[in-house]
Amino acid sequence: MGPIVECVPNFSEGRRRDVIEAIVEPFRRRRGCALLDYRADADHNRLVVSLAGAPEPIQEALLEAAKTAIAQIDLNHHQGAHPRIGAVDVIPFVPLRNMSMEECTALAHAFGKRYHEETGVPVYFYEEAALRPERRRLETVRKGQYEGLKEAVSDPERHPDVGPPRLHPTAGATVIGARKILVAFNVNLGTSDVRIAKEIAKAVRASSGGLCHVKGIGLALEDRGLVQVSLNVTDYEKNALYRITELVRMEAKRWGVPVVETEIYGMVPAAALLDSAAYYLQIADFSPDQVIELKMLEMLGSEAE
Amino acid sequence: MGPIVECVPNFSEGRRRDVIEAIVEPFRRRRGCALLDYRADADHNRLVVSLAGAPEPIQEALLEAAKTAIAQIDLNHHQGAHPRIGAVDVIPFVPLRNMSMEECTALAHAFGKRYHEETGVPVYFYEEAALRPERRRLETVRKGQYEGLKEAVSDPERHPDVGPPRLHPTAGATVIGARKILVAFNVNLGTSDVRIAKEIAKAVRASSGGLCHVKGIGLALEDRGLVQVSLNVTDYEKNALYRITELVRMEAKRWGVPVVETEIYGMVPAAALLDSAAYYLQIADFSPDQVIELKMLEMLGSEAE
Repeated sequence: MGPIVECVPNFSEGRRRDVIEAIVEPFRRRRGCALLDYRADADHNRLVVSLAGAPEPIQEALLEAAKTAIAQIDLNHHQGAHPRIGAVDVIPFVPLRNMSMEECTALAHAFGKRYHEETGVPVYFYEEAALRPERRRLETVRKGQYEGLKEAVSDPERHPDVGPPRLHPTAGATVIGARKILVAFNVNLGTSDVRIAKEIAKAVRASSGGLCHVKGIGLALEDRGLVQVSLNVTDYEKNALYRITELVRMEAKRWGVPVVETEIYGMVPAAALLDSAAYYLQIADFSPDQVIELKMLEMLGSEAE
Repeated sequence: MGPIVECVPNFSEGRRRDVIEAIVEPFRRRRGCALLDYRADADHNRLVVSLAGAPEPIQEALLEAAKTAIAQIDLNHHQGAHPRIGAVDVIPFVPLRNMSMEECTALAHAFGKRYHEETGVPVYFYEEAALRPERRRLETVRKGQYEGLKEAVSDPERHPDVGPPRLHPTAGATVIGARKILVAFNVNLGTSDVRIAKEIAKAVRASSGGLCHVKGIGLALEDRGLVQVSLNVTDYEKNALYRITELVRMEAKRWGVPVVETEIYGMVPAAALLDSAAYYLQIADFSPDQVIELKMLEMLGSEAE
């Protein structure tokens, strides 16, 4: 099986149904590009698409979808709760199978160059694909949003990585990058005391000294009378879900509070769950090749080449 | 995504490499038929193939492979440790996704009819596809093996389900059926006292009153100084792996013996492990559609149609 990449492009359109469907259409149609999920949010005025497949069909479909978005979205008349600098705002590539982060970064760079050539939209590279250290963080690249960046782009500090130092007149700029997959994982606790969730979030997240690849906050689920430790796992291989769950459980015991349930929000790679199954079931020498569906995917994937 | 079937055909050839490769060739080549695994055993003089895919390509590839096996294998000159009545000995179909057991049984019956028409080899139906209750058990169908059945086939009790009451002169007969997937699951315990493994096997297996879809024995792993509860799970949806593991662990506590590790032997469906991950991680409202690879498989599968 060849390399498989995941891609989660974000478009600045969450309201006009016809435009949303027109943007998504190439992802449905293109052979070898699997449209895993797409969700538009009217408040954010934003469309988030999840794709997976071989790099070639993914890139072809992205270019087609981007051209539709650029033709249909005018950022001068765009309002929404979510920060953005472009009609096609962010395109992160994620190495899924048979692909290193270096290869994924090279893919982001090559795609960014071609994207600019075909659309005229300037490109910034972020996260693993960043060419300037401060651009690793998306927040830095998007500072001031479309409206602010229109002026700021002439400052050498804010020059695009690909293209001239000015924004596209209606489509702004696009941020393209490579990153690891992110798993959104929440742990709900049997108490209504939100301080406990906040304390536990502090104990497990990287920013306050916990696990290096976990971000998190504590919040109240008021309707349910529970609290939630809401987590983003930025490297599920290094910070396994079972380890996070058991760490939260251990901390919660300090207050005699039980783990009521957990939630996986959105997509998750099979390995993140198989790894936890193998831990709890104590499976020795387990290989993903033993899982019928993963083996089938490999077989069907190699046929498609 | 259309129906996906698993199939584990057994051929009576485990020694001649060229014949083995010629039998397997159509499974490699046929688009939509994934060759998950194949292993030949010289002592058993037998080839076991694992396939998965849509019913159509699987059947086409099976017929092609069967014709090669029938042309190349003469049971009158075949010896091996494993019981057999045919050059193509057994073909079980297993419903994997989007397929009921009734549909799988219908598939076995339709395939059996066509198989006989195209090869002249008589067919017996077994397990869920059995047309006579006593033929549910493979042992009953195969009683006396090729040599014994040559005579016995004329007895109305032993008449084939499809075809005249005589064996193919070199290729014997073939047993075709439908059954649930089987998971081979072993639990290794930290003791050298094999009586403990035997007691625990008794406690968990159906034949002595345990879980209804578990078969099992206790045996010694002498090289390692451990004992093993060796299990076959014939319905992993009704008897989940986590429940079996925790039941064995609970029984082992009676003697202060720990579970050292477990083993999954051969292929396992993703759901059997995801189910255990969801149990231990306490994931609420988990859907397999959230698993990137399963969703991709569904997408690629529907493309192939």
